[in-house]
Amino acid sequence: MDEKQNNQKKIVEPSILSGFMELLPKEQMILTHMTDTIKKTFESYGFIPLDTPVLEKSEVLLAKSGGETAKQVYRFNKGDSDIAMRFDLTVPLARYVAQHYGELTFPFRRYHIGKVYRGEKPQKGRFREFYQCDIDIIGNGSLGIVNDAEIVSVIFSTFKALDIGKFKIMINNRKLLNGYFEYLQIENTVETLRIVDKIDKIGRDNVKKELVKEVGISEETAESVLSFLDNAGSIADIMAGLKKYDIPNDKYKEGLAELEAVCENIKALGVSEDYFTVNLKIARGLDYYTGTVYETMLCDYPQLGSICSGGRYDELASNYTKQSLPGVGISIGLSRLFYQLNEVGAIQYSNKCTPTEILFIPMSDTVQYTLERATEFRNAGYSVEVYMNDGKMAKKLTYANKLGIPYVVIIGADEKESGVFNLKDMATGEQHKISSAEEAKSITKKYI
Amino acid sequence: MDEKQNNQKKIVEPSILSGFMELLPKEQMILTHMTDTIKKTFESYGFIPLDTPVLEKSEVLLAKSGGETAKQVYRFNKGDSDIAMRFDLTVPLARYVAQHYGELTFPFRRYHIGKVYRGEKPQKGRFREFYQCDIDIIGNGSLGIVNDAEIVSVIFSTFKALDIGKFKIMINNRKLLNGYFEYLQIENTVETLRIVDKIDKIGRDNVKKELVKEVGISEETAESVLSFLDNAGSIADIMAGLKKYDIPNDKYKEGLAELEAVCENIKALGVSEDYFTVNLKIARGLDYYTGTVYETMLCDYPQLGSICSGGRYDELASNYTKQSLPGVGISIGLSRLFYQLNEVGAIQYSNKCTPTEILFIPMSDTVQYTLERATEFRNAGYSVEVYMNDGKMAKKLTYANKLGIPYVVIIGADEKESGVFNLKDMATGEQHKISSAEEAKSITKKYI
Repeated sequence: MDEKQNNQKKIVEPSILSGFMELLPKEQMILTHMTDTIKKTFESYGFIPLDTPVLEKSEVLLAKSGGETAKQVYRFNKGDSDIAMRFDLTVPLARYVAQHYGELTFPFRRYHIGKVYRGEKPQKGRFREFYQCDIDIIGNGSLGIVNDAEIVSVIFSTFKALDIGKFKIMINNRKLLNGYFEYLQIENTVETLRIVDKIDKIGRDNVKKELVKEVGISEETAESVLSFLDNAGSIADIMAGLKKYDIPNDKYKEGLAELEAVCENIKALGVSEDYFTVNLKIARGLDYYTGTVYETMLCDYPQLGSICSGGRYDELASNYTKQSLPGVGISIGLSRLFYQLNEVGAIQYSNKCTPTEILFIPMSDTVQYTLERATEFRNAGYSVEVYMNDGKMAKKLTYANKLGIPYVVIIGADEKESGVFNLKDMATGEQHKISSAEEAKSITKKYI
Repeated sequence: MDEKQNNQKKIVEPSILSGFMELLPKEQMILTHMTDTIKKTFESYGFIPLDTPVLEKSEVLLAKSGGETAKQVYRFNKGDSDIAMRFDLTVPLARYVAQHYGELTFPFRRYHIGKVYRGEKPQKGRFREFYQCDIDIIGNGSLGIVNDAEIVSVIFSTFKALDIGKFKIMINNRKLLNGYFEYLQIENTVETLRIVDKIDKIGRDNVKKELVKEVGISEETAESVLSFLDNAGSIADIMAGLKKYDIPNDKYKEGLAELEAVCENIKALGVSEDYFTVNLKIARGLDYYTGTVYETMLCDYPQLGSICSGGRYDELASNYTKQSLPGVGISIGLSRLFYQLNEVGAIQYSNKCTPTEILFIPMSDTVQYTLERATEFRNAGYSVEVYMNDGKMAKKLTYANKLGIPYVVIIGADEKESGVFNLKDMATGEQHKISSAEEAKSITKKYI
């Protein structure tokens, strides 16, 4: 009768909205592992977890935004409330710090790993719901330049721990660029920065053309800008080059001193030049940044663009408070990064689709004994599962294989009586006679 | 000039929507730790992480729902899409399993920790955005009863690990109740269950009155129902009592056999009767459950009600597929639990508002050396922070005290030269002379 009712029931085709990411267990295991790794690394630098509501008051969340961002925001009314879904983690941070200013200890170092929402046009690798992983250090009135160096150390440790291949962190300082542009008597430095930032995408010649056309400077000045950006080589070379210019502009000098301090402190933090460099072409599109800026490239996959970016800003929360709150931070767009790494084949998948390390399979009359032994292994730190359903042995072993469970133990009457059983390595087929979780420890390998 | 602009800028009062939870670092540290603990425990039983979009198609998400739930859902249009925010993690699971049926391995064991949304009337301890922590085991066509026992073991391990005081898991079986009601020739068993479930809230007498009035049974029959529910004592006592009834109803017998099997296997899983019991009064309001049902009480805070509930269901996804997908699972309403524990003072706060275990404070000319040493300690597994801003020593130590950082190291010229420094225990004031992270390990205690 139940089945009949069921058949008469209207079935709704299960599907999700377009532009949203949803993963199968094998992929989800990797993404969850990446999230855990990032969290652990952020915490090892003493960043404090923060969690803010996904839904905010529209008037507060959109205090500053206009243009493209505002159009993309998911915004709706419920009851009397005009509600918006957060589109990044920076605006909620600004709101939080302003709102709880008197209750926080500064410098306020927080990390936030959470979903954000943008109703972008669906396109490959762009998601409407995606994870951002952010750290920021917010000072109360001032914030030492060493903080800018530490951020690089965090990026370094994070991508080392993620183990997704060789990477290079590129740093620059906007004061240096702006100071040089001022020296060249370029008035529209914001637009100049915006165009210069596109150099790797559109090329040197197009940047030159745009500078002449959009900023209204001479070809000669545009060439000066470009040859300045050509400064490359080792950090020592670049620094020497920048000093040789000897530009009589205070902003330039300040930027140069900051960049030098940042580089020295990065080295003290144990990050070698193999992993970071100065790249004068990095400007970052946002007019938000005021000093140090960061981008991070995967050396084997430059086509992915920057996978971790950020910088220094003077006023985090000027929309919400008159307090001066300078800060420095970075963001990893994790969903997009994961999608891209997957696309280029940079993710090493094991067969593992579950946290389970050992599957215990009882014979029919050993269920309770098996549960006891499984609990013993779980208490010893293993992730353990007991196959608890009827069926043939072949089906149970297929289950282990399909999920990529690395070790299997079968417990029959003999094993129950003797307390000794075989731990089978599913990859090699090897069997190890053991009688305790302690004995297993010298045999089992760690998988994620 | 920047400051002037700033002063002219319109300041928006920073605030959040009512009914949303947002925590300060000290509380957030605890909630994050609880979430991590739950995740780790779920994974130790081999539950697979699952993450589904917060936004779903309304027609899919609301395929079944009506009444109260539908009214509470956050639902809106964007472009051509009719969008709803998930209000639990069970409906998305049903949709996911039906949608990816051919790509999943069964039994499918998943955990999901995520935010859900309900536009409830704001009231104390009820939130419009809250975390649920769910596990479910889904069978393909069938699912052995041992799974119902394992769920209790997971609840046990989770609350043991959360360390929030003594608790008791109460189990029951709906077939047992329904079989007994059928035997008493009560027709409306659904309504009877619904009323019986309120017994701890409204009391025995009121339940009796409601049964007579709403279900239309005699006072005598209502009394039979109630005296059946009075069965209490040890599990052995209750089982003996239930067997003595010897009710000639198949559903009753099936329920009794299931309950007995569940209890035996729970014990094999190492959960003692101190932590679980059979409680025939537990019915769970939802008409969804078909067999085993669970509730969990904190012994010292019975006023909190059930902090972890769930049960067995025959058809997870009948709205989305004709496949028979029986399952069993539980849910912890974490945000509400955290709020309630806080309210009754059951959370032991340390002073700690940061993951940082050791704060390194450099003197002005030892910054780089300090960064080097800090990196060494971080690589050794410590969560380490370097105080990187100017200021007097008193201010720096105040920072450590305010954040409750347990250990502080000050590095001046002498320390730099000798490589030996004092590790100061901020709680006791004790100083330990050390020269390496290895030496620190025998001194430092673990805090969360």
